[in-house]
Amino acid sequence: MKVAKFGGSSVANATQIKKVGEIIKGDQERKFIVVSAPGKRHKDDFKMTDMLIKMGTAYISNEEYEEYFTKVLGRFNEIILELNLSQTLIEEIEVTIKQTLALNVDSNMKMDAIKAIGEDSNAKIISAYLSDIGISSSYINPKEAGIIVSDEPGNARILPDSLAKIYTLRDKDGVFVIPGFFGYSEEGKLVTFSRGGSDITGSIIAAGVQASLYENFTDVNSVYTVNPNIVENPKEITTLTYKEMRELSYAGFSVFHDEALIPAIRARIPVCIKNTNNPEARGTYIVAEREVNDQCVSGIASDTGFCSLYVSKYLMNREIGFGRKLLNILEDEGISFEHAPSGIDNMSVIIRERNLTPEKEEMIINRINNELHPDTVSLQRGIAVIMVVGEGLVNTIGVANKATSAFVKANVNIEMINQGSSEVSMMFGIQANDLDKAITALYHSFFD
Amino acid sequence: MKVAKFGGSSVANATQIKKVGEIIKGDQERKFIVVSAPGKRHKDDFKMTDMLIKMGTAYISNEEYEEYFTKVLGRFNEIILELNLSQTLIEEIEVTIKQTLALNVDSNMKMDAIKAIGEDSNAKIISAYLSDIGISSSYINPKEAGIIVSDEPGNARILPDSLAKIYTLRDKDGVFVIPGFFGYSEEGKLVTFSRGGSDITGSIIAAGVQASLYENFTDVNSVYTVNPNIVENPKEITTLTYKEMRELSYAGFSVFHDEALIPAIRARIPVCIKNTNNPEARGTYIVAEREVNDQCVSGIASDTGFCSLYVSKYLMNREIGFGRKLLNILEDEGISFEHAPSGIDNMSVIIRERNLTPEKEEMIINRINNELHPDTVSLQRGIAVIMVVGEGLVNTIGVANKATSAFVKANVNIEMINQGSSEVSMMFGIQANDLDKAITALYHSFFD
Repeated sequence: MKVAKFGGSSVANATQIKKVGEIIKGDQERKFIVVSAPGKRHKDDFKMTDMLIKMGTAYISNEEYEEYFTKVLGRFNEIILELNLSQTLIEEIEVTIKQTLALNVDSNMKMDAIKAIGEDSNAKIISAYLSDIGISSSYINPKEAGIIVSDEPGNARILPDSLAKIYTLRDKDGVFVIPGFFGYSEEGKLVTFSRGGSDITGSIIAAGVQASLYENFTDVNSVYTVNPNIVENPKEITTLTYKEMRELSYAGFSVFHDEALIPAIRARIPVCIKNTNNPEARGTYIVAEREVNDQCVSGIASDTGFCSLYVSKYLMNREIGFGRKLLNILEDEGISFEHAPSGIDNMSVIIRERNLTPEKEEMIINRINNELHPDTVSLQRGIAVIMVVGEGLVNTIGVANKATSAFVKANVNIEMINQGSSEVSMMFGIQANDLDKAITALYHSFFD
Repeated sequence: MKVAKFGGSSVANATQIKKVGEIIKGDQERKFIVVSAPGKRHKDDFKMTDMLIKMGTAYISNEEYEEYFTKVLGRFNEIILELNLSQTLIEEIEVTIKQTLALNVDSNMKMDAIKAIGEDSNAKIISAYLSDIGISSSYINPKEAGIIVSDEPGNARILPDSLAKIYTLRDKDGVFVIPGFFGYSEEGKLVTFSRGGSDITGSIIAAGVQASLYENFTDVNSVYTVNPNIVENPKEITTLTYKEMRELSYAGFSVFHDEALIPAIRARIPVCIKNTNNPEARGTYIVAEREVNDQCVSGIASDTGFCSLYVSKYLMNREIGFGRKLLNILEDEGISFEHAPSGIDNMSVIIRERNLTPEKEEMIINRINNELHPDTVSLQRGIAVIMVVGEGLVNTIGVANKATSAFVKANVNIEMINQGSSEVSMMFGIQANDLDKAITALYHSFFD
């Protein structure tokens, strides 16, 4: 029994939805279909969710909203027409939108309900289409499916009781099409997940029904071993572990919405990234454990926009609580840190630059000086982080050497190395302007 | 104007003290002489301070102490006789010991006064000897010299006003011999520094008189680039910076009592390690700054007896305060950590094994499980730490590669790398039983 989730580009228009139909037909195990709202059909297109937000914001602010309303309805109508589905569908959607706009609830709750129209309507359309091509399909609302969430508009979290309820869906006949992105609070309010939350719905359903596989259909054949914007035609990754995926996605691999996979991971459901436009391609599997082969590095991820806060004080390591106090100051100021290597008499804290405004920087440096009396404190911006990721890497002699050789070859100075805190990765910090040549050298070193 | 401090083996007997006399004669700049108590004359010998502690403990416990008293007095008498000094000296020392034992003060204060007899008596003897060979020398008591300390028996700290008082010694004529290891509280109580504290006295005097050089006479020609017990006849280090010295001494280089140099470092006084038995040897200089040459690695230090506490939790880096809370638990339990590298979803804390009893370990792991709800927490013992130390190392391309190549050559797996938190070192963690081959390979890689 599989859960298949289709992202925005996979359900952007009738052509794409027909592909989805073929995919569902192709494997009878595909019983639970989770769908996004229509995404972009081409580079300059709009995403349905963005248009719904515009419409909702205008409506709530008592501004002109009809232009957006027309675009929303027009796009759904186009899909329905091209799929030759009944016109009652578009009439139903129109009624739903009008009723949602007119809801007598607070504005946060109303916005959540408006945003959810994209997925909800698309699920109804796709279910109707699947029936039309001979699949015994039903639309199922998240409330009915059992997706019970916390009452945090735009940031819902799944409640523990949901999974047992969802499990009972297994016994029902036919294929179910479930709109992604939202659930219902215990009081019955519609609440959305954070943006990109259709992945969360898919993950929850996969965990709930204890799927044999959670298929995540996108518009790429697989995850690549390195950013294809830096290295042309890089190798594809066939299998990743959850841990590897997480380390890669940290540094720029936008495989997944970070938190989306948690329910599937907790239930140890294998996940597969597949291409709606090329469903024959094997895709990339993300699993709990994998066999470690000779090629111990799975992928190389990188990201820019980091800075390093450096604090030194003679005999720091004798001062019980120094590190804790430093992290405490950051916590007080609401700064999460990425990495905090410490030496004998010094400690560095790597922070995302976007989290550190000049005001915050000044505040933090003042507090460190006043409260910790260090010998020096300084901040370096413009750092790029590279993650070399692979299960088994930590126990393989020579991986660090292979990596550092690549940096020498690329004539790049390594500002920072962190190996050993993670079981599956090695982290390097370099100057951001050296990034492309470092990544290229690393790729050739590990994958040629 | 120089301060020369002579360690225990440099003043262990008359032969050694005669060498000290020659050294003082050899350079008129040597005005302040700080001396330890007599150390071991051969492998099975006793150190004067140990014997004084035995005597004091026995006396305070109302046990037989005369045997120790006789050994203490006998040893001083032997030195006095061999140096052909007046017998009134030994009579004075005997009176001092008896008066000290009979002091009507609490036992901590009495022990401090007893322990100080070794340095104090030796200073009197050495000053008398210097006068005897024609040097205008005076013994000066630490109270008179201005060494005013906190009232913490066995762990005194210098008080800020001391340095100005000590500075006035510059204007007095002649050479001064000052016993190391103790000072006086503001109330006039004798209080000792922690063990090895004669280095502290030397450092304080050097800072106070703003010496041009603080010479620390020991029984080695210099500091070696690597532990000579692992690599035979290693190269000598000619110049180190304070920071380099600190990183080396952390991992097994017992160049100095760790805190001893703080006063000299704060005053930016250059320090020189020299050999009493071979004063012609250049020695090793420890300075605030040095020119960085091609050979960017100064030394390689190593130490065993570390363990690694590993904690992982999915999405740890999203949880503001996670690292702080972990360090907080360690702080609560009085555990200082050496190094705390963190990754995306994990954090390791390197702790000296001796600081982590099995009871503490259980307590800490329970608290981490209960308070932080990690996915995994584990402890690995038997780790050795290697520090590759050198100013400029961080900005030199290829140092990490040279080091990791050595590990490959030695067929040693690197469990942990930390570069970048320190400006002058790179830290590696390996299995302790791989230490000798790793060190040997690193030495040959950097120094051949």
